[in-house]
Amino acid sequence: MPRIRIVLIEPLNDGNVGAVARSMKNFGLDELVFVRPCEIGEEATKRAMHAVDVLKRARIASTEDEALEAADYIVGTSGVDTANEKKFSRISVTPNEFAEKIAGCEGTVAILFGREDFGLDNDMVRRCDFLVTIPADPEYPILNISHAAAIIMYELFTSGLVRESPRKASELEMVKLNEFFSKLLDAIDYPEHKKKKTRVMFRRMIARSVPSTWEFHTMMGVLDEAAKRSLQDSSRGKH
Amino acid sequence: MPRIRIVLIEPLNDGNVGAVARSMKNFGLDELVFVRPCEIGEEATKRAMHAVDVLKRARIASTEDEALEAADYIVGTSGVDTANEKKFSRISVTPNEFAEKIAGCEGTVAILFGREDFGLDNDMVRRCDFLVTIPADPEYPILNISHAAAIIMYELFTSGLVRESPRKASELEMVKLNEFFSKLLDAIDYPEHKKKKTRVMFRRMIARSVPSTWEFHTMMGVLDEAAKRSLQDSSRGKH
Repeated sequence: MPRIRIVLIEPLNDGNVGAVARSMKNFGLDELVFVRPCEIGEEATKRAMHAVDVLKRARIASTEDEALEAADYIVGTSGVDTANEKKFSRISVTPNEFAEKIAGCEGTVAILFGREDFGLDNDMVRRCDFLVTIPADPEYPILNISHAAAIIMYELFTSGLVRESPRKASELEMVKLNEFFSKLLDAIDYPEHKKKKTRVMFRRMIARSVPSTWEFHTMMGVLDEAAKRSLQDSSRGKH
Repeated sequence: MPRIRIVLIEPLNDGNVGAVARSMKNFGLDELVFVRPCEIGEEATKRAMHAVDVLKRARIASTEDEALEAADYIVGTSGVDTANEKKFSRISVTPNEFAEKIAGCEGTVAILFGREDFGLDNDMVRRCDFLVTIPADPEYPILNISHAAAIIMYELFTSGLVRESPRKASELEMVKLNEFFSKLLDAIDYPEHKKKKTRVMFRRMIARSVPSTWEFHTMMGVLDEAAKRSLQDSSRGKH
């Protein structure tokens, strides 16, 4: 995983700065750099909540170059995407694509956010290795800066997670559950010509719901009991 | 695509409310409902930016039931996930999984956000068809409410960009299916103290699998027949 540095260039609103710090801590990041920031006051502290430490450790750089020192990748964020080839420097990737592309990188990735009212200037945009735009409604595509940051960090965090599934039922359990369903079909004298299709349907539904071990055991209990009672009913004759 | 309704239950901070409205407009949503909200004042208007219209059209409901009227799916958001099987009602999906599952649904999906300091209470959590938790650093997993909302809406927006909808079972059909399962539990003399939990489990599993109309009818047929036979068996005495 790369090391992520969040760089806020000329933030105007310290409430936003606090909110960015909080989101950083939510997603396990801690390197925050400001370039020519507004005063970082009480509102920042309030909105940072339990991430005041991130705020306090933040570094203030006087130039963009200083903020980008030792960064291996420079990533810009932009509220406006373009498919216009002449403005190709503004052609961007989605946060998801960005997270996937960057996931295997070593080194430091600096993610830049421009001023709330202005974004990044063209010079800065040209320096970026990636430009990331969050897909949004063309009618109002400009997100609040801390929300844009949160979404990008969320994508980085989730792409980095090796998703484990400790509580999923095993393949063997799934097979068993399907067998019990099949037995229930037998027990209720389900029409022979429809059995196969219905078994496949149940298997697909269960697979889609990705049951936990506990859910598997509970369902199996219900199906088993229903099958037993239906069978006893059948064996006693018609109804 | 389903119709999305954002429901804020007892929001405490009107700045957050404004920020949620802005994010909604960023992601093309406009149905906002409050239950017993704080005063929605200047800070809300300021943070809503160009989404003041969303804020103004928001509806105030006096009860949760009123806010959830005509909702086909109820979705809770929770800052705390659990792998603890005993607290299964708190087992949740990620925003991405949620967006994928809901993408093809028809009808209205109500997404609930609880109080900033408290979240949703247990009764409300139990009523939910889905519980969504944003993966985050276990050291500080609690996101600001408007950031949590933005991430979930972002996932819905991006998943909706590429997906088309096959015919999914309606809410009425889902309710019917759950009723038939409930009747089956009665018919097999399922332990009274486990019924509630098992009904919630089945509802969640089915919601996760997002059944088609055909699957719904087929499952209902099986459950109905099994219940009838089990009942006849019971009425004939012990076994």
